[in-house]
Formats: sequence, C-alpha cells, structure tokens
Amino acid sequence: MTEYDIPSGRPAETPTPSPGDPRLARLSLNQMTTRNWTVAEAVAGCQRAGIPAIGLWRDHVAAAGLAKTAGLIADAGLRVSSLCRGGFLTGADRNAALDDNRRALDEAAELGAGELVMVVGGLPEGSRDLRGARERVADAVGDLVPYARERGVRLALEALHPMYCADRAVLSTLGQALDIAEQFPVETVGVVVDTFHTWWDPAVGDQITRAAARISCFQVCDWVLPLAPDVLLARGMMGDGHIHFGFFAQRASAAGYTGDIEVEIFNADVWKAPGDAVLATMARRYVEHVLV
Amino acid sequence: MTEYDIPSGRPAETPTPSPGDPRLARLSLNQMTTRNWTVAEAVAGCQRAGIPAIGLWRDHVAAAGLAKTAGLIADAGLRVSSLCRGGFLTGADRNAALDDNRRALDEAAELGAGELVMVVGGLPEGSRDLRGARERVADAVGDLVPYARERGVRLALEALHPMYCADRAVLSTLGQALDIAEQFPVETVGVVVDTFHTWWDPAVGDQITRAAARISCFQVCDWVLPLAPDVLLARGMMGDGHIHFGFFAQRASAAGYTGDIEVEIFNADVWKAPGDAVLATMARRYVEHVLV
Repeated sequence: MTEYDIPSGRPAETPTPSPGDPRLARLSLNQMTTRNWTVAEAVAGCQRAGIPAIGLWRDHVAAAGLAKTAGLIADAGLRVSSLCRGGFLTGADRNAALDDNRRALDEAAELGAGELVMVVGGLPEGSRDLRGARERVADAVGDLVPYARERGVRLALEALHPMYCADRAVLSTLGQALDIAEQFPVETVGVVVDTFHTWWDPAVGDQITRAAARISCFQVCDWVLPLAPDVLLARGMMGDGHIHFGFFAQRASAAGYTGDIEVEIFNADVWKAPGDAVLATMARRYVEHVLV
Repeated sequence: MTEYDIPSGRPAETPTPSPGDPRLARLSLNQMTTRNWTVAEAVAGCQRAGIPAIGLWRDHVAAAGLAKTAGLIADAGLRVSSLCRGGFLTGADRNAALDDNRRALDEAAELGAGELVMVVGGLPEGSRDLRGARERVADAVGDLVPYARERGVRLALEALHPMYCADRAVLSTLGQALDIAEQFPVETVGVVVDTFHTWWDPAVGDQITRAAARISCFQVCDWVLPLAPDVLLARGMMGDGHIHFGFFAQRASAAGYTGDIEVEIFNADVWKAPGDAVLATMARRYVEHVLV
C-alpha cells in the first residue's frame, strides 16, 4: 500500500491502527472523503480498515440503489453515522424543497441513519435579503419536524463557513443553528459540529457546550493553506493545517457527545489517491490529532 | 469615457453624479480600488470625479514619497480617510512588528490620516494556537497605544472575513475587534466596519451600534459569486452581489457615524479597467446602493 500523505512525504508519526484497534471505535468515513468509491467499495474499504461507521451521501446511495445499500450496510455490520444531505430550503420553490427533504428523511429511515445533515441553502440569485432567507430556513425546518419525528430521523442543522453564506448555507455559526434547533424537541432537530466550518469562531467552544444532546454529528477535517481555487475543495487531512482538533474533541466530550466522529474531506488530491491509502492515513491522523 | 460595469452591460440606473454633487460629500476612494494608479494619478482622479477623500496605502505612498504625497493631498484639498495598513502582530518577531507599526503611525501623522487600519495577522506557519494568537494581538495593541496617542492617530482594528483567519487576521468578527478596542480609550483604538468581511455575521448590526464612536472607518464593497480563485480578489462593485448596503449605512448612521465611506475593491477586472471609468461607476453605485 502506498503511504498517503498530504502535502506528501511527511513521515508517519505513529503506525496505522489495525482493524480491531479500540481507538477506532468511533471513527466514521464520510463517503465524500472517498468520493470515487461506490457505496459497495466504501463499505468494503471500511471493513478492511476496521472503520465501524460510515456517513452516506444521497447521490451515491441512489447510484447503488437504496435497498441494496441498506443490505450492504447491514451485512457489513456498519453504523450509519449520518445521511448527507437535505436542506436547500431558501429557494423560490418551497414545496419542491420540502418534498425532496421528505424523500431524504424516508431514505435515512430505510438506511438506519438517525441523522439527516441539512445544508440549508444560500441566497436566491440576485437576493440581498439575508435575514429573510434565515427566517425561511427556520419556518421550513418547522414544517419538516413532524415528518422527521414519524420517521425517527433527526434534522441535523449544519452551519457552514461564512464563505459559503451566499451560495450554500445562510447559517454561518453554530450559535445560529442552535437558535433554530432549540425551537424544537431535542430528538427532532440537532446540529452538526464541523471543525472546518467553525474553527475560526471565538464562540464555538461555548456553543458546543450549549449544544450538548443536540450534537447530531461531529465532522472533522483541516483548514489548509493556500485555499484551493475552488473553495468547496479546500478541506484538508487532519494534521495538515491550522485546526486544533483536541479542543473540539474535548468540548464535545465534555458536552456529553459519545457518537461517531466523521472524517469528511472535499479535496481533489485526496480524491485522486487510492481509497485504501486514504483510509489508512485518515485512521492514523485521527488517532494522532483528534482522539483525546 | 467607457461605461464600466461589472459583470458588464448592466445599464446605468441613475446618471453618474457630477463633481460637486452633495451626495458625494462622504465618498472616499480607497487606493486599492485603482491599484494601478500612482498616488498622483489617484489624487487627480478624485479631483476630476469630485470625490473628496482618499484612503491611502503605505506601499503606494512609499513609491511616491511620503512628503510628496502629503503635499499632493494638501494641494488637492482631499481628506485622508485612512492609511492602510498596520498590523501583522502575530508573528515570531514581535519587536520588528511593533517597530513597523510605529513607522506606520508616523506616516499616518505626516499624511494627516487620523486612522491607521490594522490587519492584525494570522497564525504562524504550522501553528494551531488560535487563542494564543488572539491574545498576542490584544497585547501588541496595548503596546502601540501610547505611541498612537502621541501621534494623534487611532489604531483601527479590522475584523477580516473568517476565510482569512489563518493567513491574514485572527480577528474574525466586529465583536472580537470591539472586545479589544474597548480595553483602551476611544480616541486611541477604534474598529473598521467593512461590509465584505462582516455581511454574513448575524450579530453585525448590534455590533455596529455597540461600536458607536469607535467606528474609525467604514469600507464598502460587494460579495459576488462565484468567488474568485484567489479569494483575496473576490471583492465586487456595490450592486453586483449579495450585500444589503443600506442596512450597514443605516446602522452606522444610527450609531452616530458621520465620517467618510471608503470604497475598497480588490478585483482583477476592476484593476484592468480605466481608472476614471471605475470612479464614475463607483460614484454612481455608491449613490444607488449605499447612501440612505
């Protein structure tokens, strides 16, 4: 197996953990980290690497087939830490967005995913009404709550980095996500804690404490410089950038979070690398940088 | 004169204001908007367009000569709304940074600039100690306050967009900048209100109110999509993007701010356009979108 390092050549500081290593008990592969793998390949990769959980993406699931994916996951004995993603609630066609989110909730239920990650949407083209868009998000979440509760799936509101405010998510801080989530019962609306999106926020530690049982999903990847020309692909492997993961892990742990920790890396170089190598590096870096 | 529009072809909604138009009384050209102009060219351009104030940059001033620039400004009867920039206080060589900032304060005093814009610096290479860097900023500001007071120049702390947190400014919100500024007398440390950096922040309106007499400088430009591959150059002309300038102008006005409003646009297309055309568009868009 090729040793996979980003930027490259950095020597391994610790051996790659072997399957069965108890330190991997909470590690989850978000499928976007191995974007070129099918669901079947990702499931098999997790089994080889001893990674016990996976965060699925709807497009990959659709390509594999919903029932077939559910079967693969069950056969492999993996947990589904989340399904990505619902959301995009700020556009003109509100009913279409709600319908699509109900389908996403159905899919999550069938996959055994207890958490549906919600990327809430940005501003419609030409719009300057940021406050209005934020209000529409809260309203639409309220409309989805009864359906989510019926399906036994929690809506996991994700604050995205402010650089995505106009085009992807008008929720820019964990505090904002909680302001909405707290309007609903804890078992119906939670929040995503994502290191990449929130590491700059001076309030993030206190907001993780506030989130407590509302932490639906804990996602990690690093902030690396220079930013990729397409900022969607700017995420890096843990340890290659400026994020202090221990801070996040300690706060989440102190807040009572004992769930999976998903590694979600959108990065063209990671996508080009062999999947097994990515998983090996990811497991090692997780142990080095995230575990506390 | 070529009509200059970005993205291009959008018809003028109002005529370009003529020199002497009272609506231009608070408009300032930040020199970075016409980066390819020398100080002399920018001063002459402001005079032709009837723009009564200018925000200077140290590198341009150095190229023109400090005394010569001061003379040009005085002869033209322009106000200097700010000098950009001091800062970069987070690196290993603290004394060198402080020395450079004292030189910047000297230059501001000689130019008649009452406000020195401070871009405080990011994380040192390899560092993950964001809180430590933020503390170093506060300490270094404290060290500079006596010298700034002697020179009659205010340190204007600028919160930069969180996407620059690692490489340019660990101050990411107006609230953070105020938390530091309020440790010092109002005439010695102020804050910059910049629409591009803070438009996403749900707290920005309240923080502008809080800032009140500490508003040193009010800078405008727009958030346009898609982001430029080099995010440093992602700024757009007012009206081309998603920022509601009236909101900022109203809040600043309600907070008692009556100073200049600087247009500061880092944008490769703007830099390629003829300077006079840029100033004409800038004046028109200012009247259309910013004035309230």
